[in-house]
Amino acid sequence: MKAFYGDLKLGILGGGQLGRMLIQQAINYNVTVKVLDPDREAPCRKLCDEFTVGSLGDYETVYKFGKKVDLLTIEIEKVNVDALEQLEKEGVLVYPQPRIIRLIQDKGLQKQFFKENNIPTAEFKVISSIADLKQQTDIPYPYIQKLRRDGYDGRGVYKVSDETYLANAFKEPSLVECLIDFEKEIAVIVARNESGEVSTFPLVEMEFNSEVNLVEFLISPSTLSFEIQQEAERIAKKIAEDLKIVGLLAVEMFLTKDGQILVNELAPRPHNSGHQSIEGNVVSQFEQHLRAIFDQPMGDTACLGNAVMINVLGEPGFEGPAVYQGIEKILKCPGVYVHLYGKALTKPFRKMGHVTVVDNDREKAIEKARFVQKTLKVVA
Amino acid sequence: MKAFYGDLKLGILGGGQLGRMLIQQAINYNVTVKVLDPDREAPCRKLCDEFTVGSLGDYETVYKFGKKVDLLTIEIEKVNVDALEQLEKEGVLVYPQPRIIRLIQDKGLQKQFFKENNIPTAEFKVISSIADLKQQTDIPYPYIQKLRRDGYDGRGVYKVSDETYLANAFKEPSLVECLIDFEKEIAVIVARNESGEVSTFPLVEMEFNSEVNLVEFLISPSTLSFEIQQEAERIAKKIAEDLKIVGLLAVEMFLTKDGQILVNELAPRPHNSGHQSIEGNVVSQFEQHLRAIFDQPMGDTACLGNAVMINVLGEPGFEGPAVYQGIEKILKCPGVYVHLYGKALTKPFRKMGHVTVVDNDREKAIEKARFVQKTLKVVA
Repeated sequence: MKAFYGDLKLGILGGGQLGRMLIQQAINYNVTVKVLDPDREAPCRKLCDEFTVGSLGDYETVYKFGKKVDLLTIEIEKVNVDALEQLEKEGVLVYPQPRIIRLIQDKGLQKQFFKENNIPTAEFKVISSIADLKQQTDIPYPYIQKLRRDGYDGRGVYKVSDETYLANAFKEPSLVECLIDFEKEIAVIVARNESGEVSTFPLVEMEFNSEVNLVEFLISPSTLSFEIQQEAERIAKKIAEDLKIVGLLAVEMFLTKDGQILVNELAPRPHNSGHQSIEGNVVSQFEQHLRAIFDQPMGDTACLGNAVMINVLGEPGFEGPAVYQGIEKILKCPGVYVHLYGKALTKPFRKMGHVTVVDNDREKAIEKARFVQKTLKVVA
Repeated sequence: MKAFYGDLKLGILGGGQLGRMLIQQAINYNVTVKVLDPDREAPCRKLCDEFTVGSLGDYETVYKFGKKVDLLTIEIEKVNVDALEQLEKEGVLVYPQPRIIRLIQDKGLQKQFFKENNIPTAEFKVISSIADLKQQTDIPYPYIQKLRRDGYDGRGVYKVSDETYLANAFKEPSLVECLIDFEKEIAVIVARNESGEVSTFPLVEMEFNSEVNLVEFLISPSTLSFEIQQEAERIAKKIAEDLKIVGLLAVEMFLTKDGQILVNELAPRPHNSGHQSIEGNVVSQFEQHLRAIFDQPMGDTACLGNAVMINVLGEPGFEGPAVYQGIEKILKCPGVYVHLYGKALTKPFRKMGHVTVVDNDREKAIEKARFVQKTLKVVA
């Protein structure tokens, strides 16, 4: 393999904020980065060696782009996997591996993988049609219907409380799963390099904004019991090893009210639930992903303090060039780190950035995060 | 002033590693950055909105570049100040202010400023010619002769041990100063925003490599007495306030064997003696410089641990495409942060990057730094 700080050319499929933060870290290693994204205003457009505008779903586009690089990675799963498999055959390194992207793109295959590998997950059934859905009796009401493909940030999920809800159910291939009465949503980010070294970040806890179905508040590390943390990290490691993934894997889980951990879904890339690691851990998820795909030693994931991460979303009712109200007030607050994503235009609930608060005192970190949430508004 | 995260265009004179790390931080605030540098392979070339190749010393080039931006800053002092003064008159914000760059460009004026403002510094005399030098009797042998202009990284400094050394002395305008029998070289980085808020980073101690006259080892925070730290920070603050600088100012000082602090020289920009702040302090010097020039609140400069910074220099005897021997070994070491500067070619003693080690235990941090120094070699 060419030296990652030298001749190697890294390609990233997707030019959004995850790619942007990955590049920000890759600068430390002189990595030559090329990016493919359909949006000519994508957050990565100015930060890479070469920015190509093109469809991530198109075979020819992805294949041609891949031929220009030595190592391809992703910052979004929705990419043309056929092209990736061909590139892999032709000697381009693709991490995460195409077979893993294919598996994770399809929530049905993902759930089957959990089942086959004894990974605890909510009961489910794969559904191929509305008739199929109406006939199924395995999963009782209320349940959740999820599209097998292309769900993202809360899209593609539908709650079926009773049979009157079936009229609006998805008609595309989907799966249904038991509605979990969970106590908390938790996540572990795990990384594995090509040599097989596996490393987890400490367990984090999330609070969702149910209105928009987005993580809006994340706390690291978790204060759940040592047993739960150990078990969550064990599960994440097992998945990384079962998959033999090279790169980062975010494992989103539910902690049920009776203390059981159920895996919800996987993301084979840097993830929103790991943004706090930039300032809150010895190495960040972005650094760890680079180390994994370059087959370098896994970094130390220890927490440096209590970190709370808040997504900065476009305020409802505003659309246009973004104005960050209150930014001066939050910059006055020690231990508050602002990350804007380079998006010129705001719209309601668009992810415009995130803020991480780090403090030795957990309660103070949470208090500051609430202050940030109240104070920083993205308007137009 | 336009919003720094929005319409504002920031220009940087100089596209080296200091500009590169400034941009890496500016990404967090969506700052639009344009860079001017004479080297088309400069470290910033790929990371900015617009990269212009041109001379920093040429009036027309700097003036034209400056007309394209709203706010100009520098990462090197050797720039055309006449152009900056004209730009300032025409409404471009220039931080640090041109009059300060002019003062600091000339070590003679710098020393006179110290004298006029009661800032402790080594005895000196301004010299305009060789005849002048030979005749001066104010500063006894051994002394140091420094070129008034264009000294950099140890160039332009000459030790005159006795009169036999005069044959090789600089013929250009210079100053001579008493050779200080110092205990330690120390530095404080101070920042001042337009609103007049002033903030210092904790005192750091340096170890120089006398062979190449470069900082090769920096420890933060200093373990010198509280009195010395307070005094050094007081002096740095006083200089920032006397100058009314907007932006960062690195104040390099000697601590004499009898406990006196003498200011050596100033740099009105991010500085090598502040690189450890990226991981070692709540905010980095780069973040602080951005906050100062954008008139945002000064950040918290508290140390997060003991940080040791090592310059990564090209190994003597090697010239060509850089190979970083031992990088994998040092990445195994927890708390070790590698920063490469995007320079494709190494040559003897070229600054190719730096490494910062952060550890709660000061002795362990130093031990790891020595391991890094021994292990990481830049060869070709």
